[in-house]
Amino acid sequence: MTGPRLDRLSLNQRTTASWTLPQAVQGCVDAGLPAIGVWREQLAEVGLEEGCRLVREAGLRVSSLCRGGFFTATDPADVRAAEARNREALEEAAALGAATLVLVPGGLPAGDRDLEGARHRVATAVERLVPYAHELGVTLGIEPMNPVYAADRGVVSTLASALDLAERFDAADVGVVVDTFHLWWEPGVAEQLLRAGPRIVSYQVCDWITPLPADTLLARGMMGDGHVDFAAFSRAVGRAGYTGDVEVEIFNADVWAQPPAEVVATLSTRYLALVEPYLVEA
Amino acid sequence: MTGPRLDRLSLNQRTTASWTLPQAVQGCVDAGLPAIGVWREQLAEVGLEEGCRLVREAGLRVSSLCRGGFFTATDPADVRAAEARNREALEEAAALGAATLVLVPGGLPAGDRDLEGARHRVATAVERLVPYAHELGVTLGIEPMNPVYAADRGVVSTLASALDLAERFDAADVGVVVDTFHLWWEPGVAEQLLRAGPRIVSYQVCDWITPLPADTLLARGMMGDGHVDFAAFSRAVGRAGYTGDVEVEIFNADVWAQPPAEVVATLSTRYLALVEPYLVEA
Repeated sequence: MTGPRLDRLSLNQRTTASWTLPQAVQGCVDAGLPAIGVWREQLAEVGLEEGCRLVREAGLRVSSLCRGGFFTATDPADVRAAEARNREALEEAAALGAATLVLVPGGLPAGDRDLEGARHRVATAVERLVPYAHELGVTLGIEPMNPVYAADRGVVSTLASALDLAERFDAADVGVVVDTFHLWWEPGVAEQLLRAGPRIVSYQVCDWITPLPADTLLARGMMGDGHVDFAAFSRAVGRAGYTGDVEVEIFNADVWAQPPAEVVATLSTRYLALVEPYLVEA
Repeated sequence: MTGPRLDRLSLNQRTTASWTLPQAVQGCVDAGLPAIGVWREQLAEVGLEEGCRLVREAGLRVSSLCRGGFFTATDPADVRAAEARNREALEEAAALGAATLVLVPGGLPAGDRDLEGARHRVATAVERLVPYAHELGVTLGIEPMNPVYAADRGVVSTLASALDLAERFDAADVGVVVDTFHLWWEPGVAEQLLRAGPRIVSYQVCDWITPLPADTLLARGMMGDGHVDFAAFSRAVGRAGYTGDVEVEIFNADVWAQPPAEVVATLSTRYLALVEPYLVEA
């Protein structure tokens, strides 16, 4: 399975949720994957220094650190706590040499129906983080999320609106995370990808499956099991000039129930069939 | 409960799914509602002529006929069948004097991942229906649907793209159906409502609730039970100049388990508290 055609494939740790960071690093090495998307929770289990040593000695790139964000609190103490967590996450991303810190915008606070207000608070929080991100040389990656999550997870609902926000800042400081699950349905998404161009800091792939699993947070499918046209989407990402890693990020109880090494084998096969051939426009 | 403040409230039959058309008509009369959104399935149970007689003698307006559409088939026989069903639905809408025939665009055919192609087929099918709609004096109402349904129910995912399609035709022939469940999350929706103006042929209200019920087709909540800001949305609909009926359309197993007359009482109360005060901009 190893070889040049896997040279942009990254395992997002959440796809193999039962693996510790050392296990996931070893899983990437065993499967010939050159990159990993690291989660803060698993990083904390081994500590930052040990985590950095593990990925460096394995020769892996860190395609992203997941996750910062959750910016929509209104209580001042919660706002300060979110900022502190994000500054810490930026320091970890810098230490890991991660291509980006993925920012999940956050949903509506309990009982709050002011979606515009929540979107405004995301913009304010990003603005406050930019100087420290710049100082550390980390690019913030705003992740627009499928509208199914607008209430409870991410109030930035389209690539177009993520770009409206990102473009207020230098591209080196603020980019966008492009995830097929979140964006496959967006009208005009190919044009928005072209608009994004160098702002694309991460390309994440997984499928939109129906019927949607009962827990919408675990609704993502293995590429090929659902409705996403990965060829068309990956071509558009390629045309936008993206040459970075392609992360497979799947939250799905059935996937998590399988042996992780088998999941990595399956996602590698699906990636080679459905994604990789289309990444570079002829 | 009767009185001028209910004079734009309409019961979409699907909210009281266990009621026959005669029962729903009587339910509207009993509760002082001046309008009803009729479903073709329940209309067929009594026949068109009897259905027309029932609503006329009750003095009700028919705020919409649900539903036409389902335009995304690729097989020529299926395409012809869909067109025939839609022509029949237009005739029923004309006989009922319905304000619009609601068009549900349809999802991706099984195994088909060409979302652009499906969207194109919707446009083609609408174009083919327009002459007959015009002849009958019925306005087609394109219903943009929440992206959670993009794969399996409705490939027109935003009010902006519904308007892109509707604006190819005269406003008397093709309008848009505005439903809070489908559109509450759309960035810039207030501006799109202004753009829509007289193209708004139906305003449907129900709430976005979390966690999303396991069957996403039954995921709609009673106004006030979820995350939608009905005041802001209704103000924007009012500013757009909409003066028609406001339909309450809720697909929800818990709502359907309640006695229908109680459901009508609840939705009337919620409408008066959350929607009606905001429909006309001061």
